[in-house]
Amino acid sequence: MVSPGSWNTLQQNRQQRLQRVAERLGADLQGRILPASRIRDLLHAVLESGDRVCIEGNNQKQADFLAQALTQLDPAQVHDLHMLQSVLALPEHLDVFEKGIASKLDFSFSGPQATRLARLASAGRLNIGAIHTYLELYARYFVDLTPRVALVAAQAADRHGNLYTGPNTEDTPTIVEATAFKSGMVIAQVNEVVDVLPRIDIPADWVDYVVAAPAPHYIEPLFTRDPALISEIQVLMAMMAIKGIYAEYGVQRLNHGIGFDTAAIELLLPTYAASLGLKGKIASHWALNPHPALIPAIEAGFVTSVHSFGSELGMEDYIRARPDVFFVGADGSMRSNRALSQAAGHYACDMFIGSTLQIDLQGNSSTATLGRIAGFGGAPNMGADARGRRHASPAWLKAGREARAGKNAMPRGQKLVVQMVETFREHMQPAFVETLDAWQLAEQADMALPPVMIYGEDVTHILTEEGIANLLLCRNDEEREQAIRGVAGYTPVGLARDRRMVDNLRDRGVIRRPADLGIDPRDATRDLLAAKTMKDLVRASGGLYLPPRRFRNW
Amino acid sequence: MVSPGSWNTLQQNRQQRLQRVAERLGADLQGRILPASRIRDLLHAVLESGDRVCIEGNNQKQADFLAQALTQLDPAQVHDLHMLQSVLALPEHLDVFEKGIASKLDFSFSGPQATRLARLASAGRLNIGAIHTYLELYARYFVDLTPRVALVAAQAADRHGNLYTGPNTEDTPTIVEATAFKSGMVIAQVNEVVDVLPRIDIPADWVDYVVAAPAPHYIEPLFTRDPALISEIQVLMAMMAIKGIYAEYGVQRLNHGIGFDTAAIELLLPTYAASLGLKGKIASHWALNPHPALIPAIEAGFVTSVHSFGSELGMEDYIRARPDVFFVGADGSMRSNRALSQAAGHYACDMFIGSTLQIDLQGNSSTATLGRIAGFGGAPNMGADARGRRHASPAWLKAGREARAGKNAMPRGQKLVVQMVETFREHMQPAFVETLDAWQLAEQADMALPPVMIYGEDVTHILTEEGIANLLLCRNDEEREQAIRGVAGYTPVGLARDRRMVDNLRDRGVIRRPADLGIDPRDATRDLLAAKTMKDLVRASGGLYLPPRRFRNW
Repeated sequence: MVSPGSWNTLQQNRQQRLQRVAERLGADLQGRILPASRIRDLLHAVLESGDRVCIEGNNQKQADFLAQALTQLDPAQVHDLHMLQSVLALPEHLDVFEKGIASKLDFSFSGPQATRLARLASAGRLNIGAIHTYLELYARYFVDLTPRVALVAAQAADRHGNLYTGPNTEDTPTIVEATAFKSGMVIAQVNEVVDVLPRIDIPADWVDYVVAAPAPHYIEPLFTRDPALISEIQVLMAMMAIKGIYAEYGVQRLNHGIGFDTAAIELLLPTYAASLGLKGKIASHWALNPHPALIPAIEAGFVTSVHSFGSELGMEDYIRARPDVFFVGADGSMRSNRALSQAAGHYACDMFIGSTLQIDLQGNSSTATLGRIAGFGGAPNMGADARGRRHASPAWLKAGREARAGKNAMPRGQKLVVQMVETFREHMQPAFVETLDAWQLAEQADMALPPVMIYGEDVTHILTEEGIANLLLCRNDEEREQAIRGVAGYTPVGLARDRRMVDNLRDRGVIRRPADLGIDPRDATRDLLAAKTMKDLVRASGGLYLPPRRFRNW
Repeated sequence: MVSPGSWNTLQQNRQQRLQRVAERLGADLQGRILPASRIRDLLHAVLESGDRVCIEGNNQKQADFLAQALTQLDPAQVHDLHMLQSVLALPEHLDVFEKGIASKLDFSFSGPQATRLARLASAGRLNIGAIHTYLELYARYFVDLTPRVALVAAQAADRHGNLYTGPNTEDTPTIVEATAFKSGMVIAQVNEVVDVLPRIDIPADWVDYVVAAPAPHYIEPLFTRDPALISEIQVLMAMMAIKGIYAEYGVQRLNHGIGFDTAAIELLLPTYAASLGLKGKIASHWALNPHPALIPAIEAGFVTSVHSFGSELGMEDYIRARPDVFFVGADGSMRSNRALSQAAGHYACDMFIGSTLQIDLQGNSSTATLGRIAGFGGAPNMGADARGRRHASPAWLKAGREARAGKNAMPRGQKLVVQMVETFREHMQPAFVETLDAWQLAEQADMALPPVMIYGEDVTHILTEEGIANLLLCRNDEEREQAIRGVAGYTPVGLARDRRMVDNLRDRGVIRRPADLGIDPRDATRDLLAAKTMKDLVRASGGLYLPPRRFRNW
C-alpha cells in the first residue's frame, strides 16, 4: 500500500512555495500583485534547484524583465534549472547558464544566440536536451517536459490577476495551461496593472503572481521586410512561384516563411497574380503572422482570412480595422495563438514555402551550419507532409497523384513543401552542397541525428532563379539528384550536372525554366511590386500601418 | 478603392444578431443568461441560413439540449446550415438534416450514427464536406472552416457568463476561441448557474449567451472497459505487446486506443510487466483519457503522468486524489484539452497502439465498412509518423534505424504505430482482407480517396494472437505482404501465405511467435489481470472510482 498523501507531492510542494512567498513577501503582496522591486526575492522564494522553468521567449515577445531577474539569482541557492523555451533570443537566456543558475535546455530556436549557444554547449556549461519544432515542444509540456514554474509576459493585468495579452498572445496560453494544471507556479510580468482589461486572455485562476515591469516587454518586429530591399531576382523567383506552383496547384491555403523571397510573392499578388486572373483562386486563406508585405494583397481583396502565431509591431491599428480578415476579439485587438496556428499550418494548409541555407542532393535542407546551434522554429512542423490529414483539396490531391504516379500504392494526398533559394547566398556561399554541415555539427555537438530542418522526403519543389525542380515527378534517386543539380545554377553541385539527363527532365516538365513557364526574365522588374518602399506599405494601409522606427527614414 | 466599412462585415453582422436578440428576448435576458424556455427563440434570432454552426458533440460530452433545440427550428426561417462537429453521436445531429435545417457536414467521427449518416448522404439529404482527424478539424476552424456560431456545453456558468467546464473540458476552449475571435456568436448550455465557479475555464468575454439546460449535458463513459470481458486471447496478445514491443523499444511515452485489447495491456502492467522488471522502463507518460483500467498501474507506481483529451465518468474523485498523475487545477478537478492532447499524442508520444476492422496486404487499415460512414477520430493524427518531430528518444531512434537499415537515406527516427487485432473479429469476419471495403465505400459515397484510417506506410507492427509482424524490417513489398499473411492466422489471407517465405521472415525476426518471445500461451490466463472485475477496479482505487450504473452489478 502506498501511504496516503503521496499522490499530491506536487500540490504539497506548491503549497510550500506559496507559503515561502507569503512569509517573505506577504507585506508587499496585494492579492497576486507584487512590486517589481521584489522580483529577485519572489524568484528566490518560488524557485527550487532542479526546477523545470519555462520562460516565455518566443520569436517576438520576450518576458525580458523576468529573464533579467533570473540572471540575478544566487547560484548557491538556485542552480541546475532546466530551462524550457521556444526561442533563446536574449543574452540573459544564456547568462543563466554561464552563471551556474541553469544547466539544461530544451528549446526550438536560438537564431540570435546560436553561436554563443554552440560555444557554451561545447564548453560543457549547458546540456541540450533536444531541439524541437514549436508545436512539438508545447506537446512535451503536457507529457514529459511539464514546467514546474512558468515565467510569462502579458500586456496588462487587472487587480485580480487576470491577464490581457493583446495581439501578442503567442505561446502564453499554452505555457500557462501546462503549468497551472500540473500544480506548477505561474509568474507574469505585465506592462501595466489596470482596473478593467479590454478582454481576458488568461483567467486569474491560472496565475499566481503578477509583477508590473519597469519597462514594456520587448517585441521583435520579426516579420517586417522593407520592399526597397527586394531584388529583381527575387521578383523573378516570385513570378515563377506564382505561375509555376500557386496557379498550377490552385493553392488557396498556405503559410509563408520569413524572408524577402516570400515577401516578394506577397507583393506580387495584387499585380502579377491578378493579371493572370488568379484573384480568388490562390492565396486566400493563411496561417501567417500579420506580414506588412501582405497589406496590398489584403487591400486588393485577395485575402479572405489570416490566423496568426503572433502579431507584428506596427500592424495593430491596421488589424483592428480589418476584422473580416484577422482574428480579433470583441475589444478589437487580435488574439494570436502559436500552438493553434501551428496546428493550422500543419493540418489546414496545402503548402509551406520557406527558405534555407543548405540543400543536399537528396533534397534535405538545413539552416544548421558549423559552430551555430540554431534550431528550426516552425519549419519542421509546417514543412512536413501531414500524414494524419484526411480532408481533400485539389492542390493536395494533385501533389499526391504526382508523387504516386505509376506506383502500386494506396492513393493519398500530399502537402506541397517548397524550398525557395537563390543558388548562392550571401558571401557567395553555395546553397547547394554535396554534404550538409548538419552532419559535422551533429558530431561536434553529440546529437543523435544530423539537425535537418526539412527532410528531402517531404520536399516537393525546389525553386531557384534558374527554375523549378518538381521532386514529386522524379522516379528514382538519380533523377531526384539531377533535378536538384538542374536548378543549382553555377554552384559546384549545379556544374556537376549530367546535361543530357537534365535536358530530359526538362522535356518531361520535372524541371521548368522561366521560359517553360512563359515568363520573360526581362519582365521581372521591381515595377511589379505592389509596394516598393515602406512608405508605400503605409500608404496602401490607408495610414493604419505604423512601421517601427528602424524601418522608417521619414 | 474598397468602400470604407466593408472590412468589418462580420462585426456588423454580429451586431445585427445581438440586436435581434435584444429586441426579441431582451426582457428575459439577465446579462448573458437566458431562461431555457426561450432557447428556440434565441436560436431563431441568432442563426441565419447558410451559417457555419459548430455544435459541441465530441466522443463524450454532448451539447444535447442545444442539439435538440436546433431540430425544433423552422426550416423556412433557418436552413442550409453547415454543421461542424467533432462527433456526430445523437439522433438529433442527423435530424437537422432530415428536417431541412442543415445541408452540409464536416466532421471527424460518427460511430453511433454511421449507418444512418450513410443513408442520408446517399439519399442526397446532406453533403459531406470531408472527414477529418480531430486536430485537423480544429485546425480548419482557424483557416477555412471558421464557425459563425458555436453551440457548446459546460458544467456551470457564473452570472457574468464565465464558464467552468470541469474535467470534461474537451473541445470547448478551441471551438470558442475560433468563433469568438472571428466575430462569431457563442452560445453555451450549462448544467447550472452559480455565484462562484470552482475555476474559470472560458472567460465570459468570449461567450455571448448562456442557458441553464433543464438536464445536465450527456456524457458517454466511452473509455470504460469491464475487465470481466477480457479474454485469455487478449491476455496473450497483451503479453506479446509488452514483451515484444514495449520492452523491446523501451516505450515510455504513449497513447492507447479504445478497446479491450489495450485495456488488457493496462491491466498487465503491474503484474506481467512488473515481473519482467519493466516498472519505470515502459509506459510512464501518457496522452490518454483517464481509463479506469489504468488504475492498478497507477497505484503500482507505474505511471508518472497522464494528460487527457477528455475525462471519464466516475473517475472524478480518483483523479482529484491523484494530482501528481493527472492535470488538475487549483480547484482539484481535471482540465482536459482535446486539441492539446492530440498535439501531445502526435508529437510527444513514441507509440500509438490501436485496433481496426480491416487490414489489407499493404498494411492499410480502416474501420470504414460498407454502408457505414464512421470517420476515424484521433487515430489518423496519432497513428501517423510525425514527420515534423525533431527530438530523439531511444524508442523512436530504434524504429527509425530499423526502417532505414541498408538504405542510403538520411537517418531519422520513426513513430511506432501498432495495429493490434484478433485475426477474426465478431461474427467471424476476417480482420485481414485482400481489398479494404474502403475502396467500394469511396465509390458509393463519391469520396476523393478511399477512407483509410492508418496508412500502411505509417504502420510499424501488426500484432495478432498468432504473433507480431515487424513491418519496419521488411525489405520490399513482397516481404511486407508475407509478413502480414504470416500473422493473419486462419483467415483466407493467412492461409494463402508462402510458408517458406514466412519461415524465413520468422528466422530473421520479422515475424515473432509467442514462443520466439519466450511466452508460453498456457501462462496467458486471466489470473494475470491486475483487476478481473469492475469491483476490483473500484477496490484498486481505494473506493474512489465510482463506475456508472451500467457497469455495476452490485
